[in-house]
Amino acid sequence: MGSEAPGAAFPRAEAPLALTMGDPAGIGPEIALKAWLQRTPLQLSPFCFYGSTSELRERARRFGYDVPFAVVRHASEAVPVFKTALPVMDTPLARPADAGRPSPQNAPAVIAAIERAVSDVHAGVVRGIVTNPIAKSVLAAAGFKHPGHTEFLASLADDFWPGQPHHAVMMLASSALKVVPLTIHVPLARVPTLISRHLIQASARTVARALQNDFGIANPRIAIAGLNPHAGEAGTIGHEDRDVIAPAIQSLVAEGFNVTGPHSADTLFHAAARETYDAVIAMYHDQALIPIKTLAFDEGVNVTLGLPFVRTSPDHGTAFDIADQGIASATSLIEALKLADRMARRRALAAA
Amino acid sequence: MGSEAPGAAFPRAEAPLALTMGDPAGIGPEIALKAWLQRTPLQLSPFCFYGSTSELRERARRFGYDVPFAVVRHASEAVPVFKTALPVMDTPLARPADAGRPSPQNAPAVIAAIERAVSDVHAGVVRGIVTNPIAKSVLAAAGFKHPGHTEFLASLADDFWPGQPHHAVMMLASSALKVVPLTIHVPLARVPTLISRHLIQASARTVARALQNDFGIANPRIAIAGLNPHAGEAGTIGHEDRDVIAPAIQSLVAEGFNVTGPHSADTLFHAAARETYDAVIAMYHDQALIPIKTLAFDEGVNVTLGLPFVRTSPDHGTAFDIADQGIASATSLIEALKLADRMARRRALAAA
Repeated sequence: MGSEAPGAAFPRAEAPLALTMGDPAGIGPEIALKAWLQRTPLQLSPFCFYGSTSELRERARRFGYDVPFAVVRHASEAVPVFKTALPVMDTPLARPADAGRPSPQNAPAVIAAIERAVSDVHAGVVRGIVTNPIAKSVLAAAGFKHPGHTEFLASLADDFWPGQPHHAVMMLASSALKVVPLTIHVPLARVPTLISRHLIQASARTVARALQNDFGIANPRIAIAGLNPHAGEAGTIGHEDRDVIAPAIQSLVAEGFNVTGPHSADTLFHAAARETYDAVIAMYHDQALIPIKTLAFDEGVNVTLGLPFVRTSPDHGTAFDIADQGIASATSLIEALKLADRMARRRALAAA
Repeated sequence: MGSEAPGAAFPRAEAPLALTMGDPAGIGPEIALKAWLQRTPLQLSPFCFYGSTSELRERARRFGYDVPFAVVRHASEAVPVFKTALPVMDTPLARPADAGRPSPQNAPAVIAAIERAVSDVHAGVVRGIVTNPIAKSVLAAAGFKHPGHTEFLASLADDFWPGQPHHAVMMLASSALKVVPLTIHVPLARVPTLISRHLIQASARTVARALQNDFGIANPRIAIAGLNPHAGEAGTIGHEDRDVIAPAIQSLVAEGFNVTGPHSADTLFHAAARETYDAVIAMYHDQALIPIKTLAFDEGVNVTLGLPFVRTSPDHGTAFDIADQGIASATSLIEALKLADRMARRRALAAA
C-alpha cells in the first residue's frame, strides 16, 4: 500500500491533478486560488486548473491575491511551473462570469472543462480529478441531461472506457467518518421504494473494493444502517430492514465481505461505534450527511468510488451567496486535493 | 428564573423526585442503586424509588452494592432518610424478576408504580417523575394499550388533570443540543404523511413554553428542520418543506414565536450552527437522534414537555442483554435526575 507521507514521491511525478472550474459564478475560482496560495505549507501535490484564466485573474484582482498564472497547452507542463505559478488549462467562457449570478451561457464551458479533465485522465496525463461545485439548475437550463456531477462523470467513464462496467458510488469522507448515502437528492417519501437488495449489494461491493484499493484497508469493515427507527425492531417498525436490508447483508456475508447490520442509525456514529467499522452505508441523504457534517463540518470530502479514475470534490455547493466576497473557505477543497493525491498514489502503486 | 446551583434550596424541600422502577428485568433497579450511591459527590436531590424493594435488594446483593433501604409509606418520608438509605415506595412484583428475561406477569406492578408516581405528583408530594425504561412489547402482552411511556403519561395527565388540555412532546436534551422528533417510532415511509401544519405548530408552541418555563430561556429560538434533502430546495426535492413546514413556520412567526426554517438538516447540528438556536424540531426519529447521540452518546436525557408535571427519563432502553451483569451506565439516569430537579425548581419558582 502507498505511503501517506506528504513528501513521498508519487509514481507518476510528471502528472498533476486536474481541478475543474465548476460554475465560474460560484466560489470555485476563489478557493482554487486560495488552495494554490497554501501549496507550500500544506505540501500540496501539483494541480492544474481546468477553466477560465480570465475569470481566475478577475477574482485574484478583486480579492487582492498575488497569483501568477501559467497557461499550459498540455497537462505535463503543469508540474514544473506549479511552485511559481498556478497552471491553467484554459477554457474560455462565453461571457465574463458575474460572481453570484450564474449564467446558462457559460454552461458549455463548465461542461467542457470537466470533459477535458476526463479525457486527460483517460490519456494518463493527469492523475485524478478534483471537481469544483456546479449548479445543476443552471446547467439544466442549458440542456444538461444528467441529474448531477457524479452521474455525468459516470457517463463520461462509459464513453472513455467502453465495455468496462462500473457502479459509481458517492462517499463522504473525513478523518472521523466515511459514509455512503445509498440515495441522495430524492424526496424522503421515495427513499423506501428506492432501497433494493441489488442497490445495497452493488454499492457494498464498490465500497469494499475502493476501501482496499484507494484507501489501503486490507479487510474493510462496512456497517450498514437500517432504514427505520431502531432498524425496524425485527419488522415491527416498517418491513424494509427485515425484508430488504438484512437479506442483502446475508448475501454479502456469504460472498465473503465483512459487512454488518442493519444497525440502528442513531447509535452508529458516536466515537466508540466509529471504532467498529471503516465505512458506513446509509440509506438516505440526511442519515449520512447529518453525522459527518455534525462531526466535521468543514473538512468533509465528496469522493466518487467505483469510477475508472480518481475523483474527489469539496463537500459543499457553489455558494453563490458569498461568491463576490472573498470569504469562502478552501478547507474542503484542500482536503479533496489531498485525498485525490493519496488515492492516485495507491492506484498507481497497485497498478505498478 | 431559578438558580442552577446544585446546593440551592428548592422551594418544596420536603418533596422528593419519584423514580419509577421500569421493567424490573431490565437495568432500572441497577442504575437506581448506582445513582443513589453517587448522591453525595453529585449532590443529587432526594429521590424515592417507586417499585419493588425485594428486586432492589436482590440486585444489590448480586452486584455487591452496600445500599440500605427505607421503605416509606408516604413520599414525605423520603427526604429525611435519603442521605443514609434509598427510600422505596414499595410496589410488590407478582413474581421475582429474572434479570434479562422480562415477564408479562410483572406488567401490573410496572404500571402501578408509574400510576402511583403520577398520583403523588398530582397530590404535590413529589416534585416530578423520572421514569426508568419499560418494554412496550412486554406490557402489550399483558394488555397495555398505549404505544409508549409518553402516551401513557399523557393519558394519566388527562385522568388526573381533567379539562386541562396539553400537547405532550418528547425532547432529547444534552448539554450540546436539545432536539424534538415530531414523529418517533413509525416507519420512515409513513413520516411524510404524518407531518402536518397542526402537528408542527402545536409542538412548537409546547416547546417554546417549556423552554421559557422549564429551562429559563426568556425568548427561545427554535430551529425547524426540513424533511427532504436540503429542505427540499424550494420544492424541487419533495413538496413537504414548501407546502407544509414553511407555512407552519410562517404562522408561528405571525404568532410571535422566534422560529426559523425549514433548515437543511445536514448543516444544522455542527458547533457553529448550534449557537444559533435553543432547540431544534426535527421531523423524524433518526434526524433528531443521530445528532444528539453522535455528540453526546451517554448523557442524553429524554424529557416530556407539555405535561402538567415534570417528567424526564434516561435516553436508553431496558438493556435486557446486560441486565444481569452489573455493567450498565447510570450516566443518563443521573442526568435525568438532575434535569428533573432543575425543571421542578423553575416550575415551583414560577408558581410561587
